[in-house]
Amino acid sequence: MMVPRFREIATFMRTPYVEEFSTTDIGLVGVPFDGAVTNRSGTRHGPRQVRDMSSMMRTTHHVSRINPYDNCRICDVGDVPLTTIYDLPTVNDQITSFYQQLVGNSVFPLSIGGDHSITYPILRAVARKDPVGLVHIDAHTDTWNEWMGSNLNHGAPFRRAVEDGLIDPKRTIQIGIRGAQNSPEGWNYSKDSGMRVIFIEEFRELGVEGVLKEIGNVVGAGECYLSFDIDSIDPVYAPGTGTPEIGGLTPFEGQQLIRSLKKMQLVGADLVEVSPPFDQSGNTALVAATLVFEMLCIVAEQISNQ
Amino acid sequence: MMVPRFREIATFMRTPYVEEFSTTDIGLVGVPFDGAVTNRSGTRHGPRQVRDMSSMMRTTHHVSRINPYDNCRICDVGDVPLTTIYDLPTVNDQITSFYQQLVGNSVFPLSIGGDHSITYPILRAVARKDPVGLVHIDAHTDTWNEWMGSNLNHGAPFRRAVEDGLIDPKRTIQIGIRGAQNSPEGWNYSKDSGMRVIFIEEFRELGVEGVLKEIGNVVGAGECYLSFDIDSIDPVYAPGTGTPEIGGLTPFEGQQLIRSLKKMQLVGADLVEVSPPFDQSGNTALVAATLVFEMLCIVAEQISNQ
Amino acid sequence: MMVPRFREIATFMRTPYVEEFSTTDIGLVGVPFDGAVTNRSGTRHGPRQVRDMSSMMRTTHHVSRINPYDNCRICDVGDVPLTTIYDLPTVNDQITSFYQQLVGNSVFPLSIGGDHSITYPILRAVARKDPVGLVHIDAHTDTWNEWMGSNLNHGAPFRRAVEDGLIDPKRTIQIGIRGAQNSPEGWNYSKDSGMRVIFIEEFRELGVEGVLKEIGNVVGAGECYLSFDIDSIDPVYAPGTGTPEIGGLTPFEGQQLIRSLKKMQLVGADLVEVSPPFDQSGNTALVAATLVFEMLCIVAEQISNQ
Amino acid sequence: MMVPRFREIATFMRTPYVEEFSTTDIGLVGVPFDGAVTNRSGTRHGPRQVRDMSSMMRTTHHVSRINPYDNCRICDVGDVPLTTIYDLPTVNDQITSFYQQLVGNSVFPLSIGGDHSITYPILRAVARKDPVGLVHIDAHTDTWNEWMGSNLNHGAPFRRAVEDGLIDPKRTIQIGIRGAQNSPEGWNYSKDSGMRVIFIEEFRELGVEGVLKEIGNVVGAGECYLSFDIDSIDPVYAPGTGTPEIGGLTPFEGQQLIRSLKKMQLVGADLVEVSPPFDQSGNTALVAATLVFEMLCIVAEQISNQ
Amino acid sequence: MMVPRFREIATFMRTPYVEEFSTTDIGLVGVPFDGAVTNRSGTRHGPRQVRDMSSMMRTTHHVSRINPYDNCRICDVGDVPLTTIYDLPTVNDQITSFYQQLVGNSVFPLSIGGDHSITYPILRAVARKDPVGLVHIDAHTDTWNEWMGSNLNHGAPFRRAVEDGLIDPKRTIQIGIRGAQNSPEGWNYSKDSGMRVIFIEEFRELGVEGVLKEIGNVVGAGECYLSFDIDSIDPVYAPGTGTPEIGGLTPFEGQQLIRSLKKMQLVGADLVEVSPPFDQSGNTALVAATLVFEMLCIVAEQISNQ
Amino acid sequence: MMVPRFREIATFMRTPYVEEFSTTDIGLVGVPFDGAVTNRSGTRHGPRQVRDMSSMMRTTHHVSRINPYDNCRICDVGDVPLTTIYDLPTVNDQITSFYQQLVGNSVFPLSIGGDHSITYPILRAVARKDPVGLVHIDAHTDTWNEWMGSNLNHGAPFRRAVEDGLIDPKRTIQIGIRGAQNSPEGWNYSKDSGMRVIFIEEFRELGVEGVLKEIGNVVGAGECYLSFDIDSIDPVYAPGTGTPEIGGLTPFEGQQLIRSLKKMQLVGADLVEVSPPFDQSGNTALVAATLVFEMLCIVAEQISNQ
Repeated sequence: MMVPRFREIATFMRTPYVEEFSTTDIGLVGVPFDGAVTNRSGTRHGPRQVRDMSSMMRTTHHVSRINPYDNCRICDVGDVPLTTIYDLPTVNDQITSFYQQLVGNSVFPLSIGGDHSITYPILRAVARKDPVGLVHIDAHTDTWNEWMGSNLNHGAPFRRAVEDGLIDPKRTIQIGIRGAQNSPEGWNYSKDSGMRVIFIEEFRELGVEGVLKEIGNVVGAGECYLSFDIDSIDPVYAPGTGTPEIGGLTPFEGQQLIRSLKKMQLVGADLVEVSPPFDQSGNTALVAATLVFEMLCIVAEQISNQ
Repeated sequence: MMVPRFREIATFMRTPYVEEFSTTDIGLVGVPFDGAVTNRSGTRHGPRQVRDMSSMMRTTHHVSRINPYDNCRICDVGDVPLTTIYDLPTVNDQITSFYQQLVGNSVFPLSIGGDHSITYPILRAVARKDPVGLVHIDAHTDTWNEWMGSNLNHGAPFRRAVEDGLIDPKRTIQIGIRGAQNSPEGWNYSKDSGMRVIFIEEFRELGVEGVLKEIGNVVGAGECYLSFDIDSIDPVYAPGTGTPEIGGLTPFEGQQLIRSLKKMQLVGADLVEVSPPFDQSGNTALVAATLVFEMLCIVAEQISNQ
Repeated sequence: MMVPRFREIATFMRTPYVEEFSTTDIGLVGVPFDGAVTNRSGTRHGPRQVRDMSSMMRTTHHVSRINPYDNCRICDVGDVPLTTIYDLPTVNDQITSFYQQLVGNSVFPLSIGGDHSITYPILRAVARKDPVGLVHIDAHTDTWNEWMGSNLNHGAPFRRAVEDGLIDPKRTIQIGIRGAQNSPEGWNYSKDSGMRVIFIEEFRELGVEGVLKEIGNVVGAGECYLSFDIDSIDPVYAPGTGTPEIGGLTPFEGQQLIRSLKKMQLVGADLVEVSPPFDQSGNTALVAATLVFEMLCIVAEQISNQ
Repeated sequence: MMVPRFREIATFMRTPYVEEFSTTDIGLVGVPFDGAVTNRSGTRHGPRQVRDMSSMMRTTHHVSRINPYDNCRICDVGDVPLTTIYDLPTVNDQITSFYQQLVGNSVFPLSIGGDHSITYPILRAVARKDPVGLVHIDAHTDTWNEWMGSNLNHGAPFRRAVEDGLIDPKRTIQIGIRGAQNSPEGWNYSKDSGMRVIFIEEFRELGVEGVLKEIGNVVGAGECYLSFDIDSIDPVYAPGTGTPEIGGLTPFEGQQLIRSLKKMQLVGADLVEVSPPFDQSGNTALVAATLVFEMLCIVAEQISNQ
Repeated sequence: MMVPRFREIATFMRTPYVEEFSTTDIGLVGVPFDGAVTNRSGTRHGPRQVRDMSSMMRTTHHVSRINPYDNCRICDVGDVPLTTIYDLPTVNDQITSFYQQLVGNSVFPLSIGGDHSITYPILRAVARKDPVGLVHIDAHTDTWNEWMGSNLNHGAPFRRAVEDGLIDPKRTIQIGIRGAQNSPEGWNYSKDSGMRVIFIEEFRELGVEGVLKEIGNVVGAGECYLSFDIDSIDPVYAPGTGTPEIGGLTPFEGQQLIRSLKKMQLVGADLVEVSPPFDQSGNTALVAATLVFEMLCIVAEQISNQ
Repeated sequence: MMVPRFREIATFMRTPYVEEFSTTDIGLVGVPFDGAVTNRSGTRHGPRQVRDMSSMMRTTHHVSRINPYDNCRICDVGDVPLTTIYDLPTVNDQITSFYQQLVGNSVFPLSIGGDHSITYPILRAVARKDPVGLVHIDAHTDTWNEWMGSNLNHGAPFRRAVEDGLIDPKRTIQIGIRGAQNSPEGWNYSKDSGMRVIFIEEFRELGVEGVLKEIGNVVGAGECYLSFDIDSIDPVYAPGTGTPEIGGLTPFEGQQLIRSLKKMQLVGADLVEVSPPFDQSGNTALVAATLVFEMLCIVAEQISNQ
């Protein structure tokens, strides 16, 4: 990674691309699927663009001075090999199946989407025993129900996950929620199921420090999953996404939130909803790649502490 | 339409928007669906953008001096009201159903896509008796078969249409074909079923005049349908499309081809595959809107001659 | 408004377009005029683009849970039908005349510009009796005088409005002012006439809460008008404007300011200076449409409380 | 001009900027005015952008091997110093006045617009005795009449010029005309007044050679003016313009047309309607700058032959 | 290559990436170096972007029906591993050294630049015995001399190659030359050294067929090299390049030229000067990738015929 | 400067361009050189673009009410006239030589880059006696060492300056540092040499006020230099730069920092790393031009106080 950043093949972070997983600690996975969106598509191109932009990343974190590549074997394990893209239930099954392979090989899955519908089938693979906790950073609760004929749309994954006992709503926190909706139904579902929902107005009142305390209080010890929707970030920083809502987080706040999760028992993490066709300047992908680097650092620290 | 072009609501060509079809001769229909693409999506935004750019159009054709609005009642009949977007067979049925209403009201359907998969369900509505002829201008034959789990993908509509007896392959001409494929199967299907395929190299040899003669020879009298895929045009003029192939037609050639079809017995026409997220300059939509205006002129002439 | 957001005709917020005003409570008006700018033009395209982007909006506010469409009849009343665009005094008269029709029909005018010169002729229609108060959010005081031969330029509307007794400078507050000028004359006029001017530096000291108190103190009860120039927002969020000044408000601050005006006696409101040719990413229009939605919510609440 | 092209102050072609005209043979003039457009504005920024892009130009023509800077004193004489921009008749008078100064100093005016309305006041200065001939390359005849309250709009300059006896319609040729209009009135005026109008379809039939012959036949010997509207070029090459029409000339054809006028008695020339806000890639300005260089070469040759 | 084109790691044409060359017939090489440009830099990003866009390519040529992957082992051999980028002579030596490895392993080098200076060090590796012939498609002859302190700049490679006896000027043809220069010196060098130079005007007269005959006449049998500068293509198709000149070739002409070289004895080929920072739409890279595919087809045919 | 901002020749701030320096107090200098970058080039175009955008600037500061043009003779002194661009040591010498001329004429040099390597040769001219203090605002410490074969790369200028005794590390403060690195070596050098390094996290804790105190404490009285790398600003505001790092300063913070330096003994200042090819919206240049205006105001005040 010491050669100039415009050189070499664009794998995630310019890590080795592997097709066999037995010697990988952290697998960077692409999930180029956007067939479940409700509005603007394009995230099928997300993994490719994040791979490209991730070569801007370097190795040693400026705060923690951690170099995750020192501690862990980190590889690009490629894209989920879907053989269909038009049928949502089958797509979900194929995603789950691929993550079961990763989990079976003790690979920590760090995923780059794709639309948010992918988190549900990922959770089916990583939440193998008890429901896991969830740190969910997003503009939307994604606990809505059927829309345009499918309950597997990208506004619904966490409702499905609760129904299936994959996540524990009482150990779930949703951060950054904002923007009008056509009904309060999803907001109500989150609240009624026991999730802690921090709307952006409360986020501004609590500040990052206060929110981090809430995360600790809600999720606690025990296994948990981190799902970061890039639309939690204000669209000026991350225009490349399908359902932008103004008034969001700054990338710096995103970095701070992730950076502070290093004590959690993560079983997986994802960064979703990067949509390159709406990202003319590439800043969305730059933010995404940097946030993935933050995730790499905390996961590497967690793994090397085990 | 005499007010400045930046003013007023952006219906197609700034025509009246109607929800009831009994007094419409030509219905401009939006089909904002792109769930059947094999590569880059985005054409769900096509009708909206063509509506917007179409306000650049004016009324009197500079060659024929025809003003189609003098002769015909032309309306924007809105978008096909799909209630599902994730299930291809159902989407196809809903499209067919809407066009049956139009045809039942004697409305000539001039459609703006949407991906090319929409032409198959449209043909199911407009080819009510015998198979119709087809003038198909495209970079691809779209006579391929199942891909990624569906045979309703946007590379397959004309194979489906032949199988269902909706088009007569011997009265079908495909113009502008080019670009590598992963197998010659679709090219072979077109040829073996009896279609006349003019690859771009032959197009350059024949010239527009020669191609027009071939159209006449192949399609002849009798009902026919015009399907114009914007990717027939060279991607420099029409970058906003999902599967661009360099070395294509110029917009002027597109105008000449359409302009010369005024003696045909058209039962419907479409302009598909305009994908705004890949059309930063808007030229794709400008070309598309102008080609739709050319279509309007020949259809209006056909109708007023009846 | 429940159908996918890429579908349907792009009226403001996808409300019904009406040409007769008797059954409308709130009229969304387009004023596509930019003939009075001093620097970069382009806002003539503002209403069209805000209409397009406004289809991203939904119905229920995430804080107040208000759905303005439940309480009020909200319509797109089209664009001001100017018959001349080259002569500023005549343009001003035609604008006033159209708003007199709206006001005469008891329609609350919520306008989307257009350059800021339009607020002066709007005020001539809405400030029918006494001078009204003014909440003016902008990077510039717009109290300058003649420039390049006209005192109806877009840097002058509030000076004209004071001279005509349309606004009460003592009940006028200007928020977000910043950026160098070629003379301090406009700043001085605002101050000398009695307006309360909050430059951006003071804004940062007071915070949104402090500014809201000042608004209450200055404007008080009694009729007032809200004029929001998109260039009050930092140009990184709203590059699509004619005279950008760095160091401005965030969209979240804009939302908070508007949201808190719900107790005021508004007689009209506008959002001006959106210039699509300089808004490649569309974020300006997204911010503008969301701010208009915030305005709709407070106006609907005001109307339903009457 | 031998230093790298990204260096130095961006005058036209990096020629010396002069404020006194007595030692200038050819004056490159900017006319940053777009207040007379009927649709999209933006050409006020044209001279600035053409100045910037013109530093890509070099000195020795690859066909004629002429270096115009060897033969002539070529200077950037700045922008027309308008003191008003809102009143069309006054603007016209101020333009005429500035060109009278140039002509009075025996400076050949080569102008960069600005919208096409500027050609009429320029002609008032350069056509001092008899009506001059006109080579007019454009998508539109610009012989329309009053629109939105002014007959000085940018669709009307050549009608005004005929009425004033500034150009001789029988020695006028209009080349590249195309695109629908809301009435045939302008086309008819051109024809009825005796102009030779070559629509794009005839252009394609005649070829450049044939058109050049027609130019010779129509304009003949005697003084003439060259007016080149960038929208004559197909909008894919020149998107940066207000009223694009597909199906236009290529830049190569533009070069050939200009290059062949070297035997004419030119009294002035202009390149108008370059609108940077619609020219994201800068290709419009690159084409424009190169066409201006072609003009410089023929004018320099004409002057050195005198 | 049968999976969707937005998926998988972006090697050139999605071929296997290899670091050992013994089983490779054709090596696709990236040369991300632009330190020798005279104007706008950016081609250091060329290989990365062409890799990305090349996944749009498919396998079977629509004219020849050749699938080069059937006949040859084609691999992405990575980027030239430069250890310095600031010193032109050393960079040149390192490039030569890498190509010597390729040639030593009987790998046919098909290179993607990078600026045109790279062709000289490549020629030092591939022209091992006698001077080779050269088919050079470009807007510029690139036979200029020292500029700004170096004779290894990107305007000079073929002059250096003649001086070193790497190419035979009498078996060299330069095609597509155009655009002004600050002196005729390079043009003269080409002519005086015996090269056949086809300026764009002659190209238009001869047509592609005539030019192909000239190529045959000039280069004949015997080893030769193909160097394709993307700026030979008109900048509207290929804006992403450092020294654009209007009035160039179409991509279709580029395809025809390459396609017809299948009988030549190629020892190497390159496609240079793709500069992504100036290629907002990506069309330059699409053209480049498609031209590289054309090269692959003729090289594969040549190799399988051996 | 009172004419419309789209008019006139684009010198820096539309000041007079001079080639002789004896009557200039503040010289605005362009240094269009980017040959020392480690990643993305493009800043060679920075001075041109800042010149263009700087015509958006006006004269009277809205806080201090200072008009720097009242107090000082401010001129555009052109670009450093390099005669080579490929050899870093020679380039450095030529830069130093030009600044020695300026300093010799008592011209205060306010420079616009260009990559950050230019500050080292500038310091060689302005730090003539003792080492000067340094206020360095940047995302990177730029105290790294040799890279890719040169220790004059743009990541190294302040290490070179310390080694040469041009700056006093104990009177040096680096502000805004952030982002991963491939080793901590540069960070360590800064610290070990005695510089005060304020990483972005500490910046957020101290606030602008606290940082300003630190600047005073560290730099104190005595001569100092101000070097402002635009990449200190968050890339959403300033995407046009070579090595963007998310989580940076806002432009308002940049303004505040500069504005408060008015009591310092500045001997020179620069604004570097503006890279137009990556600045599609132009906001980077707008920020840069406004920051340069802030610099002008404090320097003018310093000079008029002397």
